[in-house]
Amino acid sequence: MNIRVPTPDDVAAAADRIRGHVRRTPLIGVPSGTFGVDAPLALKLELLQHSGSFKPRGVFNRALTRDVPPAGLVIASGGNAALALLHVGRRLGHAVEVFVPETAPAVKVAKLHHYGANVHQAGRDFAAAVVASERRAAETGALLMHAYDQPEVVAGQGTVALELERQCPDLDTVLVACGGGGLAGGMAAWFDRRVRVVAVEASGSPTLAAARAAGERVTISVGGVAADALGASRIGAIAWEIAQRAIDEVVVVPGEEILDARQRLWDELRICAEPGAAAPLAALVNGGYVPEANERVAVIVCGGNSDPATLKAAR
Amino acid sequence: MNIRVPTPDDVAAAADRIRGHVRRTPLIGVPSGTFGVDAPLALKLELLQHSGSFKPRGVFNRALTRDVPPAGLVIASGGNAALALLHVGRRLGHAVEVFVPETAPAVKVAKLHHYGANVHQAGRDFAAAVVASERRAAETGALLMHAYDQPEVVAGQGTVALELERQCPDLDTVLVACGGGGLAGGMAAWFDRRVRVVAVEASGSPTLAAARAAGERVTISVGGVAADALGASRIGAIAWEIAQRAIDEVVVVPGEEILDARQRLWDELRICAEPGAAAPLAALVNGGYVPEANERVAVIVCGGNSDPATLKAAR
Ligand SMILES: Cc1ncc(COP(=O)(O)O)c(C=O)c1O
Ligand SMILES: Cc1ncc(COP(=O)(O)O)c(C=O)c1O
Repeated sequence: MNIRVPTPDDVAAAADRIRGHVRRTPLIGVPSGTFGVDAPLALKLELLQHSGSFKPRGVFNRALTRDVPPAGLVIASGGNAALALLHVGRRLGHAVEVFVPETAPAVKVAKLHHYGANVHQAGRDFAAAVVASERRAAETGALLMHAYDQPEVVAGQGTVALELERQCPDLDTVLVACGGGGLAGGMAAWFDRRVRVVAVEASGSPTLAAARAAGERVTISVGGVAADALGASRIGAIAWEIAQRAIDEVVVVPGEEILDARQRLWDELRICAEPGAAAPLAALVNGGYVPEANERVAVIVCGGNSDPATLKAAR
Repeated sequence: MNIRVPTPDDVAAAADRIRGHVRRTPLIGVPSGTFGVDAPLALKLELLQHSGSFKPRGVFNRALTRDVPPAGLVIASGGNAALALLHVGRRLGHAVEVFVPETAPAVKVAKLHHYGANVHQAGRDFAAAVVASERRAAETGALLMHAYDQPEVVAGQGTVALELERQCPDLDTVLVACGGGGLAGGMAAWFDRRVRVVAVEASGSPTLAAARAAGERVTISVGGVAADALGASRIGAIAWEIAQRAIDEVVVVPGEEILDARQRLWDELRICAEPGAAAPLAALVNGGYVPEANERVAVIVCGGNSDPATLKAAR
């Protein structure tokens, strides 16, 4: 397969293209010792992005690069990519259609309905929903969107890294959650080894770790507390290509440690992240990634679409 | 009464004194149209501060200005001032004692207990708790802290304004919640009419509006959805002094509109503010304050200590 991998220039072009459509999300710095981590951290609050995750960056970039036909945009997703598509459709005036797998969480599906999305239940898992979305795009002529494995999408997600580097020019390392790898891959494409990229996966869906172990992309069965965000069953082809040269480490964290890190974000900072978005902090808390003395570390808090009632107000 | 009112120099000195102890909280910008408000807004996310509100600024400033006796620090508060005192006590190594009124909310009292505070139930309302705290300070020699009516406390809260002005140098107007007026007064002391300060009160506790109407400080009976944060029964003497020359407007917002604004912060930004901290946005949403075209407006989101389960995940 001939894979087009985004370059740093593609990411810079994406940033220009989507400027004015996305929020420049802020950082909050915490000193060494916070969360029990022996390094100061800069947390990038990408959960403040439109629709509650980084996903509109990639969707805007693809929708603004391509001619969008009257049939609009179609995607397979049970979660944040679909919420992002809805947001983009509303802002740019495109029809949107969403194919959700049965595994999609109630909160996200409720939001999709709330925003008036044209939602179809489609099959048991994400792969089945992708097949349904492809069939539909062929039928209606809609522009097919992929949650993580299209060059414009990966380049758009990479703008998180470009923005972060401007906010924090002397960064050594960034920890970022990885599902299909659109975000981690896009960020690594931008940094291009200037900054160490640590991809953090949930133990329920370690697609990149599995690919590294096998030496090629493999399909795994997925589950766990962060499956609705990180539960791709195979690392994206684009992300895999990038990962082999520009993702330095992969850390896999257990579900209960992800939930613990999520609660810590609340206890310490009143941040209500979704589980997948707490995975990078979990890797620091549980020692899966141990920074050197004086290493300047950033953590992407990439989504907030979960039910806040699942947090303990005080513990 | 001879009232010592903080000057801009006092606020600048406070900022130097507490640097390294408090977080420089970030801004997030949203364009005109967001929340249905016809002006771009800069939200200062002070709920990310230690202990979940701006209150440690004032407490640190007073504790670092005065000699703290072995008996430590004592305060009357059912809420964020007490949580802040606990934080400061732990960080600076001082004993702390808290007198809470019966009206204090369960979430905050649970946190106080969780952090191992020496908590005493003291009387029906805040005024009764203040009397108890004063008696106790006289008994033990502890340094008496006030939630909003001491010069060092007001100067400390004013550092929110100093920080904001550096982050956003061309600001026209800031909207800020007002209870006893420590925060609004401190901010107005710093801005000293360079920036328009709009104090926003809950309809359940309009202490500054009542004082303006009467031409002097008056005691009112308080209640409502934000009473645990904004429910002082009389504007502070210091804040009143400052307000007469440097607080430009007072807007009073109904409780249900505060709760609506709180939910909007969640829906639009995944910010989980406490009700009191949503009052300034409510004043913009309900038209209580209407910015001019091109007015550059900041909103202080000053606390996050409420139960996230009271938010609707999707509506
Ligand atoms: C909050 C959140 N974090 C991380 C991811 C993983 O992104 P990617 O599939 O690009 O690796 C997702 C994907 O939905 C997400 O919603
Ligand atoms: C979140 C929050 N906002 C506003 C206030 C009001 O502050 P002040 O009493 O200084 O006016 C408080 C006081 O507890 C608070 O906790």
